[in-house]
Amino acid sequence: MSALPETAPHDAARSRAAEVAERLARALPPESVLLDREDLKPYECDGLSAYRATPLVAAIPADEAQVAAVLAVAREAKVPVVARGSGTGLSGGALPHPEGILLSLAKFNRIVEVDARARKARVQPGVTNLRISQHVAPLGLYYAPDPSSQIACSIGGNVAENSGGVHCLKYGLTVHNVMRVHAITIEGEAIDLGADALDAPGYDLLALVTGSEGLLAVTLEVTVKLLPKPELAQVVMASFPDVESAGEAVANVIGAGIIPAGLEMMDRLATRAVEDFVHAGYDLETEAILLCESDGTREEVAHETERMIEVMRASGATDIRCSASEAERLRFWSGRKAAFPAVGRISPDYYCIDGSIPRGALAAVLKRIEELSARYGLRCANVFHAGDGNLHPLILYDANMPGELEKTERFAADILELCIAVGGTITGEHGVGIEKINQMCVQFGAAELAQFHAIKAAFDPEGLLNPGKAIPLLARCAEYGAMRVKAGALPHPELPRF
Amino acid sequence: MSALPETAPHDAARSRAAEVAERLARALPPESVLLDREDLKPYECDGLSAYRATPLVAAIPADEAQVAAVLAVAREAKVPVVARGSGTGLSGGALPHPEGILLSLAKFNRIVEVDARARKARVQPGVTNLRISQHVAPLGLYYAPDPSSQIACSIGGNVAENSGGVHCLKYGLTVHNVMRVHAITIEGEAIDLGADALDAPGYDLLALVTGSEGLLAVTLEVTVKLLPKPELAQVVMASFPDVESAGEAVANVIGAGIIPAGLEMMDRLATRAVEDFVHAGYDLETEAILLCESDGTREEVAHETERMIEVMRASGATDIRCSASEAERLRFWSGRKAAFPAVGRISPDYYCIDGSIPRGALAAVLKRIEELSARYGLRCANVFHAGDGNLHPLILYDANMPGELEKTERFAADILELCIAVGGTITGEHGVGIEKINQMCVQFGAAELAQFHAIKAAFDPEGLLNPGKAIPLLARCAEYGAMRVKAGALPHPELPRF
Repeated sequence: MSALPETAPHDAARSRAAEVAERLARALPPESVLLDREDLKPYECDGLSAYRATPLVAAIPADEAQVAAVLAVAREAKVPVVARGSGTGLSGGALPHPEGILLSLAKFNRIVEVDARARKARVQPGVTNLRISQHVAPLGLYYAPDPSSQIACSIGGNVAENSGGVHCLKYGLTVHNVMRVHAITIEGEAIDLGADALDAPGYDLLALVTGSEGLLAVTLEVTVKLLPKPELAQVVMASFPDVESAGEAVANVIGAGIIPAGLEMMDRLATRAVEDFVHAGYDLETEAILLCESDGTREEVAHETERMIEVMRASGATDIRCSASEAERLRFWSGRKAAFPAVGRISPDYYCIDGSIPRGALAAVLKRIEELSARYGLRCANVFHAGDGNLHPLILYDANMPGELEKTERFAADILELCIAVGGTITGEHGVGIEKINQMCVQFGAAELAQFHAIKAAFDPEGLLNPGKAIPLLARCAEYGAMRVKAGALPHPELPRF
Repeated sequence: MSALPETAPHDAARSRAAEVAERLARALPPESVLLDREDLKPYECDGLSAYRATPLVAAIPADEAQVAAVLAVAREAKVPVVARGSGTGLSGGALPHPEGILLSLAKFNRIVEVDARARKARVQPGVTNLRISQHVAPLGLYYAPDPSSQIACSIGGNVAENSGGVHCLKYGLTVHNVMRVHAITIEGEAIDLGADALDAPGYDLLALVTGSEGLLAVTLEVTVKLLPKPELAQVVMASFPDVESAGEAVANVIGAGIIPAGLEMMDRLATRAVEDFVHAGYDLETEAILLCESDGTREEVAHETERMIEVMRASGATDIRCSASEAERLRFWSGRKAAFPAVGRISPDYYCIDGSIPRGALAAVLKRIEELSARYGLRCANVFHAGDGNLHPLILYDANMPGELEKTERFAADILELCIAVGGTITGEHGVGIEKINQMCVQFGAAELAQFHAIKAAFDPEGLLNPGKAIPLLARCAEYGAMRVKAGALPHPELPRF
């Protein structure tokens, strides 16, 4: 807020907000505390815009002391705190708490230090993912995880959600690419997790905090690993007569001992949407395409590409093309990278799902999604990080059609529970957030959930950090489970399970 | 014990032991409970034999229900439990508690399931590391982490200590090569951690339990990742005129963007000891050798080997040899693998240290170790996983010389604290155990230690699992710190810090 409101607050919530804001204003410069509804508008949702809430107040601290001060206010006033980076998350992890403080880390946007020899960079959480790679490009280095939102998403959010991307098949998720996290607990204690060396003694709190969706601590600095840019990268694009054979080809590539730098699948609905939009040169007559990247030295790429083509051919590819230049490689990828907005052009709304399955189940799961799509009468475009079994089905719907969003959510829940049924999980790289919290009850039993709550309590005994996200209360699961039991069986008993 | 002792116990401890044994005997077959001193003898230490203790009683359960029963006895009798695999650990993590139950997992020795297509194996914790690779070799697969003790060490212990090995530079530590852990908490709750897919929702308890040194839960089953055996592996062996230039060469190899399958360094004292023992064909006239392995397809290896040789030459290698056959490759490695026993032949006793440093500090740290060696008048052989900055200095001493063990321990503490001073850590792959517990006070501040204790309490509120290991009590740190303050400065003020 530019100033505290002059008129007396009209209700309890408003008075509460004013009280918290007043405390915050004592600790932070006045322009760093937002209270007016219109100022709060930009914070009311993240990338999962179906869920919205206005926070009590927003704080935009500029340094560690100010963050500590915000957390102290939260402790004293006993109000929740939701930390937020760029707000690009897709599971609602940064959805504000209507009775809490929204803690924006937008001002933490400095690249603090780059050590090219040790191949690491120390950055603040508000630095965007892509900026790191751009910043170190002159040194011949880059940061490997590359979520589709990398132009906008910030590294603090990447740590919170354990983000992935096209290159994670070969180079790992965020957790494999961070060395240290400097964070602050709800108690205001600064903690240093991880190490500049191979292994850190004590419990692996770095891995624990990575992917913890803002429930354990607030990240204030991240040391990321940098990799040398490969001499060359090349993409093999292969067409398949059906999604099942494309799925088999993925399993065969990996089975042959090849670890591609990226291995992505798109079905016909997705490629058609994309082609109209970006003209990537995709085969529109085929049911599925695979994009399979090789990177390394010139010789390595030549050899690996040859093997990839061999496997694709043996797996039934009807057409195979290989990028002949860097420009063509980028064009091949441009379609994949634009898949979400492209699908947005052919449908009023779409819902992006994120789940993981064992690669071997790919063909069977794709077939089942097709059946579900027919059953629900909702189109579904499939865009996958196929190599690591990370699915992103996009359900196309129209929010203005009564009941269609609810049907979409049921379809999405079925897909997630299908992932669990085949031995997979309800996340690949987007986290659980608010979106998948019910499916956590299907994914885990009471013993695991109880252990999660114990971990939460070990960091945040009063449950002030991002409450209601990621880890469901046992009561919520009882309710979700009870719903299922009341129906006599599973929510969609017509759906056979693996 | 074959039977409960017939005579009345002579003292309180004996009576306590008998009482716990009696409870155990009610839950387990009688031959699975050991009480007699001579039966307990084999359990009194692990690979860190300088520390010894006799447990109250040992239990050797055969299935999950029996483990649960042992833990129930521990809870009811409020006695500590120390789980033990093969007892090859080098930091005393499996040192028995004199008032507790030693829980041997020796009977958990089955390979439960191998899924070649999904490239994973489900094994019990007592299965040895090497047996997994041997078992899946006919399928063209192997398990990557390869501690030197791999012929004897068991996978449960590997998980407890987050073990490494020669190939961890390229293929990661244990934490990067396990997919799931089925464990049982001290409360007797079975918990399933991790997933068969890319990412698991919820807090990353799999990473948390890996490396937790038996303090959080008892591992009962591990799903490990299997990798396809590379078509070819080849070793480049290079001689350097001094350890510093060898250290520089390591940094240069990595700096060139090469990730060798293994990159090991041995100094003159180590190579000489080894050569007399196994005749690996090492250069004895040089100060340090590097062993640098490339694996992959024939073409990849040819190309990578060429680049490795180039970098070694540019870094001042005086002699470079390349294994011409698989037999020669194994011979080159045989020396490295036999380094510890070889050093055991040239000294009555030796003390193996495990620490990690940023690679860039390698040359400087080696120089400092040389100075310390002169100062303490104790020889030190250096055998390193150089590529990942994991040091294993071997201090040579004679336990029969009065005061020499104490001097050795001070020397070891200095090396560990040197690792911390250059931004590294006190472990690479051996864990903290009882051995390095004081150095944890140097590695971490009060905030991190308090957080570790909170995590411990979240799993094991009464502190019954492996107490006294890995995470020091704050009181212990105060004492260790106080000692340092009393001396007016650091324990060895003559040693400059980085």
